[in-house]
Amino acid sequence: MTMKNNPIILVINDDGISSKGILFLSSLMSNLGEVFVIAPDSDRSGLSHSMTLNHPISIQPVDKDKNKYMCSGTPVDCVKLGVNKILPRLPDLCVSGINHGSNHSINGLYSGTLHGAMEATIQGIPSISFSHLSYDDSVDLTAYSSLITKICLNTIKYNLPEGITLNINFPNINFDQIKGVKLCNPSKGKWHEEFNIIKKQNNKSYYKISGKFTSVNKNIETDSWALHNNFISIVPTAINYSSDLTINELKYLENVF
Amino acid sequence: MTMKNNPIILVINDDGISSKGILFLSSLMSNLGEVFVIAPDSDRSGLSHSMTLNHPISIQPVDKDKNKYMCSGTPVDCVKLGVNKILPRLPDLCVSGINHGSNHSINGLYSGTLHGAMEATIQGIPSISFSHLSYDDSVDLTAYSSLITKICLNTIKYNLPEGITLNINFPNINFDQIKGVKLCNPSKGKWHEEFNIIKKQNNKSYYKISGKFTSVNKNIETDSWALHNNFISIVPTAINYSSDLTINELKYLENVF
Repeated sequence: MTMKNNPIILVINDDGISSKGILFLSSLMSNLGEVFVIAPDSDRSGLSHSMTLNHPISIQPVDKDKNKYMCSGTPVDCVKLGVNKILPRLPDLCVSGINHGSNHSINGLYSGTLHGAMEATIQGIPSISFSHLSYDDSVDLTAYSSLITKICLNTIKYNLPEGITLNINFPNINFDQIKGVKLCNPSKGKWHEEFNIIKKQNNKSYYKISGKFTSVNKNIETDSWALHNNFISIVPTAINYSSDLTINELKYLENVF
Repeated sequence: MTMKNNPIILVINDDGISSKGILFLSSLMSNLGEVFVIAPDSDRSGLSHSMTLNHPISIQPVDKDKNKYMCSGTPVDCVKLGVNKILPRLPDLCVSGINHGSNHSINGLYSGTLHGAMEATIQGIPSISFSHLSYDDSVDLTAYSSLITKICLNTIKYNLPEGITLNINFPNINFDQIKGVKLCNPSKGKWHEEFNIIKKQNNKSYYKISGKFTSVNKNIETDSWALHNNFISIVPTAINYSSDLTINELKYLENVF
């Protein structure tokens, strides 16, 4: 990483370029370096690591003085397009969010906020995803300024372990009730989905998905426990999605050939 | 798992319901149990673990006698809708694919084939993703019938470790050249993307993404090595995406608060 005296910071999200979370985060990052904001033109929640292969993506400056661009694609598209077509060099940091809503437990798998940050990790950029458990976008984020600044400065200075993205979630309580920070694993969790029928036409049924999430928060090593017990959770998320332990457990499958 | 004498098998993919890979796989599975095919109505490659939150999803029977449905959503939507609205009970196996094109190395992260299968794992269904490295859909898959059957019967009988999906890739060579099966980790890899400008209109630039993938195949423990050396690769993919090792390495971040 060069030019650490004036780091370049890429700011992305999945809630869209007008969300309060990204406005706050980009404003905060402008204290640390030169900020580029490249974000979806509207809400792209739940798009995970998806990218746009089958049709063109558009990108346009929103406010040229502020290096701010909106894109018709996914968070992963924003990162790829930013690195290839917008940024003057590989940035020193990518921050994603602050997402309005939880990305702990299995929700990280669906999250465009986290997976946009993971794409930046793949591109070789130290990268952090921030989410607040409240879906109310009027929640006060300013109390987190000092903590976020420390974590970002630390990451610019020391980098992160190779192939690791930080997935940080803030509990849905007032800041003065927060007890601390926990490094942890994602907990088990389950969405109990409901598919509400919207209409039936010809042979087609149209459904809208909704649901209720429950996580298991008994295990003290997990993000659900941490958040339930008034801690901020940090999960080091790996680009390498395999399970070393089960490789040995499943070795016998090599004999099927 | 009940009714193993007549297992229920869910077949999904991301290439779309008319692709040769899913026609072959569903036909093969009909020898093992009662097959339900629930697949996207057209190509949904590169959609990873994305789900449709912001608008309704449609589903319609394609051929009612054969339990075959096509869906306007993503592979993950197909699984969620199938489990909630179509299937008579939780199936005994989910198979995804056979994808026309590679899902080894970091490509698994982008893959709707793999992530549809991972959603089935989340739902509690033993689940396997199959991909062939050839993008040519006229490739002969019949040679794999016996191997796929063995792996599926084995998985129905013994299940898989909790939270693990098998990501299986076939090398792009004739079947008689294949040396065997390797259980392995995903290798490192990198897409060298190109964004080709399609048009500029008003303030917007329209790009179409293409690129060239290179993987590192020197490490004998990886899928890229296995495939490059004429083996079938099996990567046990974990729903828990954290890295235990780096949790300890990053514990010092707990002191930022």
